[in-house]
Amino acid sequence: MAKDKYHDIVKSALESDGWEITDDPLKIETGDRTIQIDLGAERVIGAEKGGEKIAVEIKSFLGLSPLTDFYNALGQFNFYQLALEKVEPNRALFLAVPHIAYYSFFKETLTKEAVKRFNVRIIVYHIQKAIIIKWEK
Amino acid sequence: MAKDKYHDIVKSALESDGWEITDDPLKIETGDRTIQIDLGAERVIGAEKGGEKIAVEIKSFLGLSPLTDFYNALGQFNFYQLALEKVEPNRALFLAVPHIAYYSFFKETLTKEAVKRFNVRIIVYHIQKAIIIKWEK
Repeated sequence: MAKDKYHDIVKSALESDGWEITDDPLKIETGDRTIQIDLGAERVIGAEKGGEKIAVEIKSFLGLSPLTDFYNALGQFNFYQLALEKVEPNRALFLAVPHIAYYSFFKETLTKEAVKRFNVRIIVYHIQKAIIIKWEK
Repeated sequence: MAKDKYHDIVKSALESDGWEITDDPLKIETGDRTIQIDLGAERVIGAEKGGEKIAVEIKSFLGLSPLTDFYNALGQFNFYQLALEKVEPNRALFLAVPHIAYYSFFKETLTKEAVKRFNVRIIVYHIQKAIIIKWEK
């Protein structure tokens, strides 16, 4: 499945960047629900490097509409952010997006404003090279 | 399609409540993009009653996972909210959810916290009766 291919690309890119993948998926147990692999949603993974811990929401932006893909990415990011603040406030959440989406849809005015308002941290990954090309914190 | 059935139920319920459906879909033109019927996303409609204007994001919560449906609903709500503030700041945005989802998934702790943090206004509709049973502003 194409989604899984992108998932593996990001994991490999993070490892090349010196990160250890510690959780796949990253489970967050809080309140009434264990948040992990939700049907239809893409998996969030956990990684660590020199004591720094991050959570990465991997998105492929392979859908028919980048806007619909973004609704899903943003909603998941906002929800996970809330959950992480409760259980692991020191683990920063990132949204991993492929370079093609980053240099098109993410350059639009409203997208940039949404990213800013909701404090979406971004990791840009290159699909063919399987490397991280940009971190936006 | 089931999604369209729910769409019609909400329109009918709003009309029974004295609202006039003015836009279906509600188009928002801002910046680089006209936001309207996005592939895969459910339509947002516009309604008016005694000079008050609202936008309603209709969700069926028919998916396999309420959490995945909620990611999409929340992301779309947050994005539309941002766009509406720019072009029609007096039009309040509501998320319409069926009573079954409201009295189960929306009663969970994290869901309630997300609704509160992102100022999600909710309209609860009864599927069989096709009426609005609750407004949460």
